[in-house]
Amino acid sequence: MNDHDQNGDDAARPNARPVVRLKPKAEARAIRHGFPWVYADELVTDRRTQALLPGALAVLEDVERRPLGLVTVNTKSKIIARVLDRNPDAEINEDWFAARLRVALALRERLFDQPFYRLVHAEADGLPGMVIDRFGPVAVVQPNAAWVEIHLSALVAALKSVTGVDTVVKNGTGRSRGLEGLPEETVVLDGLVGGPVPVPMNGATYMADLLGGQKTGLFYDQRPNHALTARLAKGARVLDMFSHVGGFALAALAGGANSALAVDASAPALELARRGAEASGLADRFDTRQGDAFEVLEALAAEGAEFDLVICDPPAFAPAKPALEAGLRAYERVARLAALLVAPGGYLVCCSCSHAADLSSFRNASARGIGRAGRRSQLIHTGFAGPDHPILPQLAEGGYLKSLFFRLDG
Amino acid sequence: MNDHDQNGDDAARPNARPVVRLKPKAEARAIRHGFPWVYADELVTDRRTQALLPGALAVLEDVERRPLGLVTVNTKSKIIARVLDRNPDAEINEDWFAARLRVALALRERLFDQPFYRLVHAEADGLPGMVIDRFGPVAVVQPNAAWVEIHLSALVAALKSVTGVDTVVKNGTGRSRGLEGLPEETVVLDGLVGGPVPVPMNGATYMADLLGGQKTGLFYDQRPNHALTARLAKGARVLDMFSHVGGFALAALAGGANSALAVDASAPALELARRGAEASGLADRFDTRQGDAFEVLEALAAEGAEFDLVICDPPAFAPAKPALEAGLRAYERVARLAALLVAPGGYLVCCSCSHAADLSSFRNASARGIGRAGRRSQLIHTGFAGPDHPILPQLAEGGYLKSLFFRLDG
Repeated sequence: MNDHDQNGDDAARPNARPVVRLKPKAEARAIRHGFPWVYADELVTDRRTQALLPGALAVLEDVERRPLGLVTVNTKSKIIARVLDRNPDAEINEDWFAARLRVALALRERLFDQPFYRLVHAEADGLPGMVIDRFGPVAVVQPNAAWVEIHLSALVAALKSVTGVDTVVKNGTGRSRGLEGLPEETVVLDGLVGGPVPVPMNGATYMADLLGGQKTGLFYDQRPNHALTARLAKGARVLDMFSHVGGFALAALAGGANSALAVDASAPALELARRGAEASGLADRFDTRQGDAFEVLEALAAEGAEFDLVICDPPAFAPAKPALEAGLRAYERVARLAALLVAPGGYLVCCSCSHAADLSSFRNASARGIGRAGRRSQLIHTGFAGPDHPILPQLAEGGYLKSLFFRLDG
Repeated sequence: MNDHDQNGDDAARPNARPVVRLKPKAEARAIRHGFPWVYADELVTDRRTQALLPGALAVLEDVERRPLGLVTVNTKSKIIARVLDRNPDAEINEDWFAARLRVALALRERLFDQPFYRLVHAEADGLPGMVIDRFGPVAVVQPNAAWVEIHLSALVAALKSVTGVDTVVKNGTGRSRGLEGLPEETVVLDGLVGGPVPVPMNGATYMADLLGGQKTGLFYDQRPNHALTARLAKGARVLDMFSHVGGFALAALAGGANSALAVDASAPALELARRGAEASGLADRFDTRQGDAFEVLEALAAEGAEFDLVICDPPAFAPAKPALEAGLRAYERVARLAALLVAPGGYLVCCSCSHAADLSSFRNASARGIGRAGRRSQLIHTGFAGPDHPILPQLAEGGYLKSLFFRLDG
């Protein structure tokens, strides 16, 4: 623990940090046990608090004026305060970032032989609202909370010294930036990015466009689900819907698939997938088709196409509660259309990255779709995001990524 | 589909099979969509049905006397009928078993290079109440429902011809046999078992006692969780609580652990673990300690012992609803005592094989235990049983095995 004073007198603090205080009804106990957030209706928002700029540091106190820790405040956000440190006097500087990054790095170095992974997964890695993906010598930072923007130069310095990366990109396109009142922008903060970066994963090589791509140019979260797909793929005809840069398709080909067709609405994504197939030496078994996923699924059915393994990894159909019902219907429809294309005894992988759709709802929607296609199924695996995407146990219900591996009847 | 008659007249059926009928309130739709069970209060239990011997075959009809399929009936069981085939006229013989076994085998041969796996996982593999584990040339059958006992010779013949095993063991020690009114017994039905069988898995060799061990002598369900443990184990001091035949400990050593201590209440299980460590060439880094797990955890704490990786895979503390609260308290206690032994930045794997404890309850109990030990944690992985343990989507809430990988604070 730490040896901060407990007298609650602002003036006694060396930095004279602003103080914010929980309302009586708020759960100080949850914060003490590691819950990282204070919601807007739990904080006393007097004029002094209202005047704090987004990302300001403050000391959080309970109703008895006992300090709970150092927080960053953003009165524009529903999550009005995020706990940065249990020590209310902690200095947010290069050393502070370096300590957190070393802890995060130790996990990833234990898990992976090569430096390609999510290095920082926000709250669970003690860096609220911050995501960092590493692509060998390049790190891509997503500052999804206002405080990160303010301390970016200390972060970049720490990142370079702890990990040895020579290039740092800031990718400011995340949906959560809007909730924090932050603008969209993607810039190279340090170093040089010459073009798409080759990323070795599951025996294939992917091409990640770190400046122009979605999010950080490549999603590491599906890695273990790619790996299981590769195990199922030997000799198979594979259809990879919503393929992006070929995540499932290239892993399946590296696992011995006979052929893989990648479908996506984005021509640039499919071009990266093609370049990945070439870099992997798998281009002769790889094909692409650009178009709306629902239309392509229906066209393939009309053509009488059949696949041994179909993967559907759509964008979030139910990113938040109001979209839940329509989102579940969309998941059901995808599963139904895809199941029609699966050969007897073949496999269907249904994925959801919707926060609002919990595992049970998503599983039911997918199973309903398979049933409506006149198929029966076994569920052989339920996968989540890989271990470089840790979560806080207190926020575990929000594990957003779900991948269901079904085997269909003969 | 099938071409059976639909007039509901028993005499018209060639086999004159008995007919059982759903009550009006029962959900015929669920059965039509693949739900495999009829509960006792959903079936008309007239005198003719009451007179059926456990395991008898019958045609299940809905209230309008339309046949829903072939079922096996056991009036002694809460699950009074289990659907065996959508075709009410199916003959349960060697060919029928062979067809189901071929479908089950195709999945396992796709997943595994060597013939060591769960070959049949009951309902999800179309063989209700039947479990078959394969150990190379030996198959161990668990007939956990009465109908399996009646058709055992046809099953054994099909098993030998489809898989090529030369030895078949019947292990009749499952808890569910009691619910079906079946006695406990373990016998070699065909072939010869000379002693413990070596089982290669995750780079280690395990010794499985197929005649005297718990269940089928070795649990395949934790295989992917063993594999992730092995990835985390390099250079680590490992403690494997409730070790049985060394499942986590030997995988961790094969993954490069510096040392592993296996703790179990059963001396014969630890002896098999020791023999497995020898067979794996890992005996010099392996140690065992026999005793009650709670007592050993407390003793280790008193000794000031510290481990980089602790795994707790206890027996089901909450096998059924009435035991849920006490079971969750036991899981919390295990997590608390184990967390006290984990080095800064080390890992704690908490497992539950309790049907009654759902993922959320078990995760909360484990996180509470870790918190009570004064530790904070990240959850880096949630694992279930491996893909050779498929489940029906309709029964997926009952996925019994949960393994939570926590990383503790520094």
